[in-house]
Amino acid sequence: MCGIVGVISKQPVNQLIYDALLLLQHRGQDAAGIVTMQGTKCYMHKARGMVRDVFRTRNMRALPGHVGLGQVRYPTAGNAYSEEEAQPFYVNAPFGIVLVHNGNLTNAMALKDELFDIDRRHINTESDTEVLINILAHELEMAARDLPLTPEEIFKAVGAVHQRIKGSYAVVALIAGHGLLAFRDPHGIRPLCYGVSGDGSEVMLASESVALEGTGHRFVRDIAPGEAVFITTEGQLHSQQCAKDPQLHPCMFEYVYLARPDSVIDGISVYQARLNMGETLAQRLISTMPPSEIDVVIPIPESSRPSAMQLAHKIGKPYREGFVKNRYVGRTFIMPGQSVRKKSVRQKLNAIGLEFKGRNVLLVDDSIVRGTTSKEIVQMAREAGANKVYMASAAPPVKYPNVYGIDMPTQEELIAHDRTMEEIRAYIGADALIYQDVDAMKRVVGALNPSIKGFEASCFDGTYITGDVSVADFAAMKAQRAAQPGDEEDAESRSRLALQSRSDA
Amino acid sequence: MCGIVGVISKQPVNQLIYDALLLLQHRGQDAAGIVTMQGTKCYMHKARGMVRDVFRTRNMRALPGHVGLGQVRYPTAGNAYSEEEAQPFYVNAPFGIVLVHNGNLTNAMALKDELFDIDRRHINTESDTEVLINILAHELEMAARDLPLTPEEIFKAVGAVHQRIKGSYAVVALIAGHGLLAFRDPHGIRPLCYGVSGDGSEVMLASESVALEGTGHRFVRDIAPGEAVFITTEGQLHSQQCAKDPQLHPCMFEYVYLARPDSVIDGISVYQARLNMGETLAQRLISTMPPSEIDVVIPIPESSRPSAMQLAHKIGKPYREGFVKNRYVGRTFIMPGQSVRKKSVRQKLNAIGLEFKGRNVLLVDDSIVRGTTSKEIVQMAREAGANKVYMASAAPPVKYPNVYGIDMPTQEELIAHDRTMEEIRAYIGADALIYQDVDAMKRVVGALNPSIKGFEASCFDGTYITGDVSVADFAAMKAQRAAQPGDEEDAESRSRLALQSRSDA
Amino acid sequence: MCGIVGVISKQPVNQLIYDALLLLQHRGQDAAGIVTMQGTKCYMHKARGMVRDVFRTRNMRALPGHVGLGQVRYPTAGNAYSEEEAQPFYVNAPFGIVLVHNGNLTNAMALKDELFDIDRRHINTESDTEVLINILAHELEMAARDLPLTPEEIFKAVGAVHQRIKGSYAVVALIAGHGLLAFRDPHGIRPLCYGVSGDGSEVMLASESVALEGTGHRFVRDIAPGEAVFITTEGQLHSQQCAKDPQLHPCMFEYVYLARPDSVIDGISVYQARLNMGETLAQRLISTMPPSEIDVVIPIPESSRPSAMQLAHKIGKPYREGFVKNRYVGRTFIMPGQSVRKKSVRQKLNAIGLEFKGRNVLLVDDSIVRGTTSKEIVQMAREAGANKVYMASAAPPVKYPNVYGIDMPTQEELIAHDRTMEEIRAYIGADALIYQDVDAMKRVVGALNPSIKGFEASCFDGTYITGDVSVADFAAMKAQRAAQPGDEEDAESRSRLALQSRSDA
Amino acid sequence: MCGIVGVISKQPVNQLIYDALLLLQHRGQDAAGIVTMQGTKCYMHKARGMVRDVFRTRNMRALPGHVGLGQVRYPTAGNAYSEEEAQPFYVNAPFGIVLVHNGNLTNAMALKDELFDIDRRHINTESDTEVLINILAHELEMAARDLPLTPEEIFKAVGAVHQRIKGSYAVVALIAGHGLLAFRDPHGIRPLCYGVSGDGSEVMLASESVALEGTGHRFVRDIAPGEAVFITTEGQLHSQQCAKDPQLHPCMFEYVYLARPDSVIDGISVYQARLNMGETLAQRLISTMPPSEIDVVIPIPESSRPSAMQLAHKIGKPYREGFVKNRYVGRTFIMPGQSVRKKSVRQKLNAIGLEFKGRNVLLVDDSIVRGTTSKEIVQMAREAGANKVYMASAAPPVKYPNVYGIDMPTQEELIAHDRTMEEIRAYIGADALIYQDVDAMKRVVGALNPSIKGFEASCFDGTYITGDVSVADFAAMKAQRAAQPGDEEDAESRSRLALQSRSDA
Repeated sequence: MCGIVGVISKQPVNQLIYDALLLLQHRGQDAAGIVTMQGTKCYMHKARGMVRDVFRTRNMRALPGHVGLGQVRYPTAGNAYSEEEAQPFYVNAPFGIVLVHNGNLTNAMALKDELFDIDRRHINTESDTEVLINILAHELEMAARDLPLTPEEIFKAVGAVHQRIKGSYAVVALIAGHGLLAFRDPHGIRPLCYGVSGDGSEVMLASESVALEGTGHRFVRDIAPGEAVFITTEGQLHSQQCAKDPQLHPCMFEYVYLARPDSVIDGISVYQARLNMGETLAQRLISTMPPSEIDVVIPIPESSRPSAMQLAHKIGKPYREGFVKNRYVGRTFIMPGQSVRKKSVRQKLNAIGLEFKGRNVLLVDDSIVRGTTSKEIVQMAREAGANKVYMASAAPPVKYPNVYGIDMPTQEELIAHDRTMEEIRAYIGADALIYQDVDAMKRVVGALNPSIKGFEASCFDGTYITGDVSVADFAAMKAQRAAQPGDEEDAESRSRLALQSRSDA
Repeated sequence: MCGIVGVISKQPVNQLIYDALLLLQHRGQDAAGIVTMQGTKCYMHKARGMVRDVFRTRNMRALPGHVGLGQVRYPTAGNAYSEEEAQPFYVNAPFGIVLVHNGNLTNAMALKDELFDIDRRHINTESDTEVLINILAHELEMAARDLPLTPEEIFKAVGAVHQRIKGSYAVVALIAGHGLLAFRDPHGIRPLCYGVSGDGSEVMLASESVALEGTGHRFVRDIAPGEAVFITTEGQLHSQQCAKDPQLHPCMFEYVYLARPDSVIDGISVYQARLNMGETLAQRLISTMPPSEIDVVIPIPESSRPSAMQLAHKIGKPYREGFVKNRYVGRTFIMPGQSVRKKSVRQKLNAIGLEFKGRNVLLVDDSIVRGTTSKEIVQMAREAGANKVYMASAAPPVKYPNVYGIDMPTQEELIAHDRTMEEIRAYIGADALIYQDVDAMKRVVGALNPSIKGFEASCFDGTYITGDVSVADFAAMKAQRAAQPGDEEDAESRSRLALQSRSDA
Repeated sequence: MCGIVGVISKQPVNQLIYDALLLLQHRGQDAAGIVTMQGTKCYMHKARGMVRDVFRTRNMRALPGHVGLGQVRYPTAGNAYSEEEAQPFYVNAPFGIVLVHNGNLTNAMALKDELFDIDRRHINTESDTEVLINILAHELEMAARDLPLTPEEIFKAVGAVHQRIKGSYAVVALIAGHGLLAFRDPHGIRPLCYGVSGDGSEVMLASESVALEGTGHRFVRDIAPGEAVFITTEGQLHSQQCAKDPQLHPCMFEYVYLARPDSVIDGISVYQARLNMGETLAQRLISTMPPSEIDVVIPIPESSRPSAMQLAHKIGKPYREGFVKNRYVGRTFIMPGQSVRKKSVRQKLNAIGLEFKGRNVLLVDDSIVRGTTSKEIVQMAREAGANKVYMASAAPPVKYPNVYGIDMPTQEELIAHDRTMEEIRAYIGADALIYQDVDAMKRVVGALNPSIKGFEASCFDGTYITGDVSVADFAAMKAQRAAQPGDEEDAESRSRLALQSRSDA
Repeated sequence: MCGIVGVISKQPVNQLIYDALLLLQHRGQDAAGIVTMQGTKCYMHKARGMVRDVFRTRNMRALPGHVGLGQVRYPTAGNAYSEEEAQPFYVNAPFGIVLVHNGNLTNAMALKDELFDIDRRHINTESDTEVLINILAHELEMAARDLPLTPEEIFKAVGAVHQRIKGSYAVVALIAGHGLLAFRDPHGIRPLCYGVSGDGSEVMLASESVALEGTGHRFVRDIAPGEAVFITTEGQLHSQQCAKDPQLHPCMFEYVYLARPDSVIDGISVYQARLNMGETLAQRLISTMPPSEIDVVIPIPESSRPSAMQLAHKIGKPYREGFVKNRYVGRTFIMPGQSVRKKSVRQKLNAIGLEFKGRNVLLVDDSIVRGTTSKEIVQMAREAGANKVYMASAAPPVKYPNVYGIDMPTQEELIAHDRTMEEIRAYIGADALIYQDVDAMKRVVGALNPSIKGFEASCFDGTYITGDVSVADFAAMKAQRAAQPGDEEDAESRSRLALQSRSDA
């Protein structure tokens, strides 16, 4: 998962992109990068780390120009499919293209071979973004051979890209000397929207509406699934549907915990979606146990707050912030001769005894993935003096892996994979366990924008919308992994090395 | 304001001090430092920045030993009295002493001259901590002249220190080859407590109980005002009252916004204190306006949450988190030829329109200092569509400067200084303004520990407990400042340069 | 001017390239870079600074593979033609090509437009190396369209490159998955040679033979002018003459001061060439003044030593090192409110009084460019007590600019441009001035390899061998510069910014 | 070994100290530090590395003031006696003292215990400089107890210091608010001199005269052995002999290879001393073998040049620079899974074949210590084609360890310890070996300043002038070392950690 942004302005854009990336920082804290363009010359700075650490005054001063794009990257460890190299990526032929990408290509490996063998393009990293930019470069070259590069050729190239690549992708690309191109996969899995400044002279593209509003832009609309938008260097906007059978299926995880509550994605307020999930969760709860057994509703900060608040309101019980989050998270250093200390939830959360002592508490989390965190939190609640500890998940059981860019463990690590509700409850040690219902969730989130026909919710329902991946594949992959030990590690270490010269902090 | 910690253990203490500093990071984000001692040798690392940035693996590996202390420092700009240099401080004679300090000496300037002229001790910074360590060093030298350094001599020296210095101070000091010394000023203005590990083999001193509990220690007790505690290198604890007429007056600001809600300071739960303030604020509100005019209660995150929650509960209105805090804060870069952009509250907060649209909202903040932030927030609430905007402050009007280590603007910058309630309301643009009552606050916070006779609440009531400062002095200082323009700036720039060799990031 | 190196081995090559770059460091101290290839993946590290500072352990560990190349770059200020960006350069299509270059393209500007307009290749810097790699990339794409990339196609592409580019160039390029390509311009202006390891399993290409020998390789031969050498990843070497009418004209400056004395370039020992120049300089001296008037011969360190030593031997006078070079050169820092202090020769040299006092000294320098240094040195000799000070230049008068990659001032700044011998002598303040004769120099250096028909000696004789530049052009350029003030500065500041992410030291 | 400098001026001194340290860089490349004083406040920057790397613009700007001192430190590995911590050192009581030191205290260990037990001063490093500054601090405190600090008290304190410490020391110290103090041990083993600026307003103290002259100062005189010089902040100079029986015995190694040739130390030109050694070496040679057997004299660069030149002149044979020094020295990186590659002389030197082929060469080095380098060089000469290879050492056989601050291996590692001339010759593989005669050396160097009664030449003659060390002690130390394996390593690792906060490059 990542956050991306692009701007065309009449003013320098470096600070603007920086500010937008900060507003998208929750989408990725692993690396950050900005490219700006002045004349036909591009200026890049990217490095591992958070936005605040990556960009210093000298870097910002070296990012001139009125056009640019940026990205924040999520740390995805040991996952050969995911974005491992810092973005943006650059290719110099044809035209000079710089690209940022949020999503995950499911056929990146096959494409990589094609690019090397047939298109004679060198791929120097394991990043699917490098594959994507080269596919786009090749298709632009083909589309514009012996022709001037007009929006028509560009949209033709995007159409060809849609034909070749599979998976989820929201893309912003800069074509040197021409303008800013953005497009979204035919299912619109990953979000992308745009807005304009007050006087209309500035166009900003971003993963979430909060980046637009937080930088003083008026939200205009989401990019449609399969659609491409091209904004010339002069600021003229062209758009066209480039996919054959586009169908909007936004990723459910954006609403569950990924996006900021103050964003509106594909017409749905993330905050309202969470309130609604709290409401259905309350109904589920009531059908399971008498609310009178609950003394207080306590959220696990941060993203479960709206759901927990609404649930508390619904069942008429007090909502209390019984857990304090440790805002300042550090590291565990390995001293010579010491072994690694286990990372604990206790480093991140602290219970306020007053709110637990002698009470029956209902803890509400946004979702339960591995179950290990929930188990520890239940234990903390008991140690803080709780009488009974109930756990509610605002999302349904997470049973299947994600191949569309959400960082998820393998299927075997998912607590809800192959376990009954009772087994999960016993594992986490709660006195009761309440899960969101998957259909109820789709219904109440979907109700906020009736034009949406469905959601990408494969983690919950096992349906992979792009059609090229199935639950059966994962079993095969698992078998293959078992047969080739050490292979993953190699891929990882190789991929950490790229052609780009390193920033040495 | 700062956070301090000290540990005596049978194990390496570097990671422990690091973890404790992270738990105290809210008390100071400007600089951080750790000193450990192995044998009689001390190891130091300190630098500007947050704990996570200051300490890297190589620094931690260079901090061996079973005894140590650490500090996080608050940024205090342009204030000649406050802690401007990174702590810990070190003097090598007598014995070798390392010291960290939370507080502010009100007679530092006079002491500095005394030290130079009479005690022949060189003070190389503007930091009052350097003054404090040299006073302690001198008194230890005097007390132990021709005598072995026993707890008796140490407590005698602390007694002499209490005689010479004025103001607020909570101190942890390491005496090389002897042990860890801690003491608190005779009014106990700044907090200091200690705890022990499960097996009792480890003693930790810290500014707040959360640092003890978050690192697996059992809270034992607060250090009494004027008391000194000395723990030998072998772990034996001695304590003695060293002040003539000690009287506990904890700083009210700790409860208002400074301390973490999950800390207990001088027998008072910070969280409960805030709930209680919410309760009296509700009473004040009810006596001012009919609660029925309010649709929703919205806290200004973070520290006002408990007060707001309790107030909402009391007046029977929904509590909703209508503001989202931007967790990732960046900088505004100054480009060549550009002027400084004004820092705006909007970079820190974002309103969720749903919660404001067409409603009468009651915003609750922990306190109102300059009023500029409140003004902007009221404006944001209106832009988000609020019908009426009421503002409540969980603390009483802030009318006087702080000289005990809380970073406060000058008196003239305080919105409540010399202004009527109506003038303040008009300035911030609210439809109504409700302030906490100062006596009610003292009563309901004090009720949580009846043994406390009073609070250091000079900002609210103008009473300076140490007796050497008065409201009249500030007028004099103001006049003096007006007469010597530029002087403050000089002090600031000089003080930024110290003898310690610089860390070059 | 630069130094370049390339290796194909059966072993890791990072340390080998590093060692070779150190041996070529005298050819460029401004920036350094290495690329290695493992499988088809390339790994790069480059930065400004000297080799020793640019490469740290972590950088070296991130340079795996048995094939690679490197470069050290000379600082060339304000010269739009020269290499301003750190090398190596990389393009990913076709194949993935990495390239290092020593020399200067005289038609880079025209080629840049061609590349952008016709070949649709984006040039992001002012570096002619980026132009060169793109020309090569384009020609490789053309030559190998629909064909496998065999040596035949590669040599065809090099032939086409020779057709398009003008100037001086010695190139080493890595074609991902294929091998290492090296070629030299049709006049062989810049040097390039290769050698093999003892067992023949390793091939190294380098600017100077000293890099081969210093890393344990046996010198095999110089690359011929116009020739291309291609070594496959497996180590098989192919070579072919790719230019139409190649003619060897090595740069005379390599022998005068550029190359290390222990190198042999195009069959001529640099050391022997300098001895020979000393010999003819002695003859010139004798024909000018009686040697009996000279008490001692003193070289200006470093490169004039062999000439001075031979001259002293020839005229039977003692050779003495009367100047000590300050090996450790620092900076002049600009403090706030201070102006820039003039850099002085005295910071670099110090005279030993004993050797000057009361004597008639003959100072020998390798060449005289601006004359300012000579003037200061003459003055130093007088202050050290010399009776008479004579100055001899081992090179003839430098009268014309260099366009083939030697960093030279503009024509107007050259002391020998438009001045008589007497005017120069008067300017530098010597009692006599003796210059090398240009024909004598060509004769005695040329005598060391009779197969060489001529030298690139345009600075001395005004003949520009590539035929596309003439002395008349410089007058035109000068006029143009006068008409467009500030233009150069812009070019410079733009070119300092490149797409490559910066290394932040 | 180190280089030290101190300045009192009417101008800022940071650049001046920096320039002087560069001129003394040959005396130590391991670390560098500067302290300046403005008012009574001191500013320090010090770090490992060379001057050019340690000081950046931001560091220089943070060094204001008209008084200051600096130091460059030699790397001394695994030697518990030597300067291991970066200088300057600082103590804040009494007065505030900053100190730099060149030399080695032979009774540092005993003093350390005294300081801790009796003087109650904390020593936090293994550096004898820290011991020295604390002894000085203590004696200043004693001398000025209840008295104003006048030159009289200061000189009394220096007298007391001379009583307590043993070994070699040249010291410059800054007493905050008072002035600059310099003194030299009663034998004047390590050099120290001073000079003044043209207008006399500026006084500079430095290890070598070259630092004075290279920064525009006129050399005034050497500090006498045992003498102290005190310059007040206002620039008034006081001096006094503070030792009981001072006797000048300058270190012979300064003339052999340590000092710059253009320095004059204790009235002796280093350059002339080396010429003289060349002359006596020539006599020794002639008495050993017929000069006619020698074709050419070749120095091993750098410091043997004057001796070799004079020797060649004396025996009437050509002097030729047959070895080229690799000026740019890098590192050997240890890659995972690789073992350490042996450092070779070949990385530092390269032979020019022309000068060796078929000739009988006489190689001249300044001294032979371990013999391993000589062995390799002889081998290189043979490989370059020499017919016969003779080796001459401008210094006599090095047989004994140095305890006065010259970095020397242990006695067992010295090739001339316990070996006959023939054994040494056989070991290094030369056809003949000629050593300087120790008495001849003393005579011809001493002849340059007849007032000097003797030299510290213990490495050659086994006489330790301070009387507290004897050759017999080394055997005892060796036995002790053998009995306590691992101890040295511990000392080394402990000493690398100091209280000073680290600079993180």
